[in-house]
Amino acid sequence: MALTSTQTSAGFADRFVEARKAFGPLVLGLDPSGDILRAWGLGDDPDGLDRFIDVVVEVAIGAVGVVKLQSAFYERFGWRGIRSLARLAAECRVGQVLVLLDAKRGDVGSTNDAYGEAYLGPAAGIQVDALTVTPYLGFAALRPFFDRAAEHGAGLFVVTRSSNPEGRPLQTARGADGLSVEQKLVSDLALANSRAAPGRLGPFGSVFCANHGPPVDMDLVNMGGLFLCPGVGAQGASAADVAACFASCPDRVLPSASRVLLADGPDPSRLRDALSALGGDLQEALGV
Amino acid sequence: MALTSTQTSAGFADRFVEARKAFGPLVLGLDPSGDILRAWGLGDDPDGLDRFIDVVVEVAIGAVGVVKLQSAFYERFGWRGIRSLARLAAECRVGQVLVLLDAKRGDVGSTNDAYGEAYLGPAAGIQVDALTVTPYLGFAALRPFFDRAAEHGAGLFVVTRSSNPEGRPLQTARGADGLSVEQKLVSDLALANSRAAPGRLGPFGSVFCANHGPPVDMDLVNMGGLFLCPGVGAQGASAADVAACFASCPDRVLPSASRVLLADGPDPSRLRDALSALGGDLQEALGV
Repeated sequence: MALTSTQTSAGFADRFVEARKAFGPLVLGLDPSGDILRAWGLGDDPDGLDRFIDVVVEVAIGAVGVVKLQSAFYERFGWRGIRSLARLAAECRVGQVLVLLDAKRGDVGSTNDAYGEAYLGPAAGIQVDALTVTPYLGFAALRPFFDRAAEHGAGLFVVTRSSNPEGRPLQTARGADGLSVEQKLVSDLALANSRAAPGRLGPFGSVFCANHGPPVDMDLVNMGGLFLCPGVGAQGASAADVAACFASCPDRVLPSASRVLLADGPDPSRLRDALSALGGDLQEALGV
Repeated sequence: MALTSTQTSAGFADRFVEARKAFGPLVLGLDPSGDILRAWGLGDDPDGLDRFIDVVVEVAIGAVGVVKLQSAFYERFGWRGIRSLARLAAECRVGQVLVLLDAKRGDVGSTNDAYGEAYLGPAAGIQVDALTVTPYLGFAALRPFFDRAAEHGAGLFVVTRSSNPEGRPLQTARGADGLSVEQKLVSDLALANSRAAPGRLGPFGSVFCANHGPPVDMDLVNMGGLFLCPGVGAQGASAADVAACFASCPDRVLPSASRVLLADGPDPSRLRDALSALGGDLQEALGV
């Protein structure tokens, strides 16, 4: 399929819808940990990282619609790792694979503007199609990310409900309005999307994991954007968990897996088989 | 003064105490925004960044004990910006200036371990003396940072109370135990420091701003570690605000300023004068 006509003009949500039609919803997480590099017979060093990238680019193009790069695993190797990350992002984008950088950046507004310069838009240091951001310094402080994403048709995913149990106490703490931190974020995102893209799927998504059961007190449909759901496989959410969590909007979820897929590398055909198997399970469970 | 004998063996808190005796508590924030680079007559590009770094290294060595590098402003230039950041960190450390990287990283445990690999210890991609981290995914998920920092004598600063007003709703939300998010973090840090460094100043610090008045419901002394207090000057906290906020532990605060100091560049002697003036105000207000 050709995304070229929409790649630069349509927003991330529209591009994801097109990519899902061609490849299904599964996002390939590219987390080159020391364990993965060693298991693939590669050095846990910049050269090993570059050989990992050569393999995964070959596998991803034509097989998945979206890859998720976890920044930490590239930062391990200093500037050389970031240079490799930049190459990976560029080669995927040339091959029509959407690149989501999982960097969980977040700071005060002026600093968030600098992070936006780093990753969003054609003048960015490393241009990606979508970015994860962290709201500890306040949803309203994310505004520079939102403005830049809307301007350039990029996607943003605000970390809301994480897969790990350690995140529950903070994410369920309640504000003066009686809403939990995660409820308030879903509500704030709904308002932002309704303003940025009235009547359409908006550019502001949520990182929302399926490990903690379906949300009983949040309106996911009304949020009006996409949901990135990491932690499928290794961190414990099954395809059925994902389907149950997003029963109200199964077409808006990007389930992401990394370790459980990369464990089948480095043989490209085995990696593609693993992608195909998990992708099939998810498509069947989600019904999209 | 010579820090060489303690630089590699003493923990960050001890090294800061030594540095403060020589240079006072003021931390020089190095945030090369486009506005600053242009105001200095430099290009807002990798070459301009390198020339900025040449100036600030010359100014910092022998004039301040700690520099704070805001990662976003280097990430703007992709891998070249990170290569420049690595050079800046290395040159400061060779010149006996402690390097604090304000990166506000934070994720699930396994990813935090990779971020630790990136910045803490002699095998890191870019070794720094201290790192800021964000607790949105849970205090307990920060454990890999804590373990690595304790092993290598590095410092960690957990973002607790940010300078911006947008952060207040989340940071004051209350958990099931009745404690606010920021109260719980101070309490968790106290426990971690009492375990890691019983009877001494511990390695786990807090980013705690003085803009919102003195904390009335938190025991800062009992936290047992250092406080990084950014936002002095441009973001609104005065030397008197800093002194009032940390009245119970004035010797444990690292007040940090960037824009208000860099505005006096690029002339090195004017920069040193600005450092000296604000540093003097802070030393007088804090009485240390």
